[in-house]
Amino acid sequence: MSVQAIARTPAGAVRIVDQTELPDALVTRDLDTVAQMADAIRTLRVRGAPLIGIAAAMGLVAGLRDERGAPRERFLARLEGFAAELEATRPTAVNLAAALGRMRRAAAAAPGDGSALWERLSAEAGAILDEDRAMCRRIGEHGLPLIPPGAQVLTHCNAGALATGGIGTALAPVYVAHEAGRRVHVWVDETRPVLQGARLTAWELRHAGIPCTLVTDAAAGALMRAARVDLVLVGADRIAANGDFANKIGTYALAVLALHHGVPFYCAAPTSTIDPATAAGDAITIEHRDGAEVTSFAGRAIAPAGTAAWNPAFDVTPARYVTGFLTDRGLVRPPFTGAPS
Amino acid sequence: MSVQAIARTPAGAVRIVDQTELPDALVTRDLDTVAQMADAIRTLRVRGAPLIGIAAAMGLVAGLRDERGAPRERFLARLEGFAAELEATRPTAVNLAAALGRMRRAAAAAPGDGSALWERLSAEAGAILDEDRAMCRRIGEHGLPLIPPGAQVLTHCNAGALATGGIGTALAPVYVAHEAGRRVHVWVDETRPVLQGARLTAWELRHAGIPCTLVTDAAAGALMRAARVDLVLVGADRIAANGDFANKIGTYALAVLALHHGVPFYCAAPTSTIDPATAAGDAITIEHRDGAEVTSFAGRAIAPAGTAAWNPAFDVTPARYVTGFLTDRGLVRPPFTGAPS
Repeated sequence: MSVQAIARTPAGAVRIVDQTELPDALVTRDLDTVAQMADAIRTLRVRGAPLIGIAAAMGLVAGLRDERGAPRERFLARLEGFAAELEATRPTAVNLAAALGRMRRAAAAAPGDGSALWERLSAEAGAILDEDRAMCRRIGEHGLPLIPPGAQVLTHCNAGALATGGIGTALAPVYVAHEAGRRVHVWVDETRPVLQGARLTAWELRHAGIPCTLVTDAAAGALMRAARVDLVLVGADRIAANGDFANKIGTYALAVLALHHGVPFYCAAPTSTIDPATAAGDAITIEHRDGAEVTSFAGRAIAPAGTAAWNPAFDVTPARYVTGFLTDRGLVRPPFTGAPS
Repeated sequence: MSVQAIARTPAGAVRIVDQTELPDALVTRDLDTVAQMADAIRTLRVRGAPLIGIAAAMGLVAGLRDERGAPRERFLARLEGFAAELEATRPTAVNLAAALGRMRRAAAAAPGDGSALWERLSAEAGAILDEDRAMCRRIGEHGLPLIPPGAQVLTHCNAGALATGGIGTALAPVYVAHEAGRRVHVWVDETRPVLQGARLTAWELRHAGIPCTLVTDAAAGALMRAARVDLVLVGADRIAANGDFANKIGTYALAVLALHHGVPFYCAAPTSTIDPATAAGDAITIEHRDGAEVTSFAGRAIAPAGTAAWNPAFDVTPARYVTGFLTDRGLVRPPFTGAPS
């Protein structure tokens, strides 16, 4: 059974799994305000491209509860301010801006004052969550044929249940295969510097009873050379119209290694991750995070004081390295020119 | 000025830099017995293929001080026991077994009882250290033409002064270029799981005043794609006759990435690292270390309790990926059939 990463509480707050506490403890936090949600996204308490879109939409709804008595213009002004605050937290994933844009449009198109607009936003956030959950399931079902019995899957970062509202993107076919009783084993890249693989992917796979083995990111080449990887499954933070995509730093190196070894390399994402407005990968803004993520660990320095570090959170993998894009609409190939669903 | 990783104390002990204490503190330890030296090698207090060969030879000399009054046969028996104890510590690097073999042969070929044999071994260990230091210097000089002004060098693990008796192997050309006033910048792979890059390479480069930037191992692909790496320089733990070589896990992935991007990839090592008795890379014994090195970080668990990890300390890079082998005899190419120096 996969973990549920986000939910609304009866009191209307957003309940998240605090992913910075994993794997030591499964801690949930109830976020009541937009400021709390923005902080949770910025500090990676909630992360994963689909999930931060959902979290931002739900955070807006929670934060606007106190504005239900406001007249229309004041409500919309507050919405705009809150949306801008959330959008500024992280730049690379398309889902965050897309979900906020969808919320803005829903409010603008709805009639009435604060109370009616809030009800509309609440329904829209619920729809974003429900659609994401359904897209994850469809990704898993479309991906099932890619997972032969006994498959050895390599994945990077966390594109699982902890990154979405459902059973994940890259891990969705693994969950569906496991549910179907098919043997599958996952090689989990630890994914420095933030260790989402070690902390989150290993945790959620073990939580679901799916066999997995942790490896350092640098070990993937040796694994492939030893023919111990049948396919690579990764997620995406933004897919450009030409199929270039941004994902966690290290994804590009895996793509090169997979091509070199003839290992199929799939990018799994909901169609909402496709951004037709971005022509190619070079136009994707790459978030650079504090070098301290590399030079220290759990508050302890691992490099000499003053050491500089280069710490892009993502890299771009050109479309030509990708065997297929596994989406809720099946395996697709670029160009992606239509509007996303 | 590069750091000196090993020396003999006036009292005859072996003084090592305790590399597990870096980068927090420069701690030296004086080792008096073979048991202490074997433990230091096993626990990576002293590491680096050339250095563990030197350390084992010097450890023998220190440990046999008390046997100087012994008759010949007892001395040789003690030598054999000590050498076996040291040789069992780590299997992959050729230098350890080679240095111990050289010490055994020196004793066997020398006349006399304990006192004379010990003097011979003491001279032999000194020669091993001196030769290594000289080989490092020559590697650096032969490698200087590979380092254009403003060069961006990528290195993995630590093949520097802390891995040898001199100025290192992969880092030797960097030190020589720096001494010659040539601008050079080093991208330092942090090198999980033991973080020799972050802890040791960054430390010794900063100690010497050479500009460097730390990156996660997974970032190398993105760096090469951005054309920010002019050449890759790595060390070796064992080079087979056909030129396949074992080095720190992750080296093979770097070699594939370098080939894919047209970046020159050099393996730097003293000719003593070439093992003509090993025909090809598949015959090299790869040390697998405790999975706890991967599932924990700086003493703190980073993965759920019970998570399995695959933790080979080394991988094998086939010769065809190597632009050139940079040795004390210059740039050479396999096959390596002659006896090493």
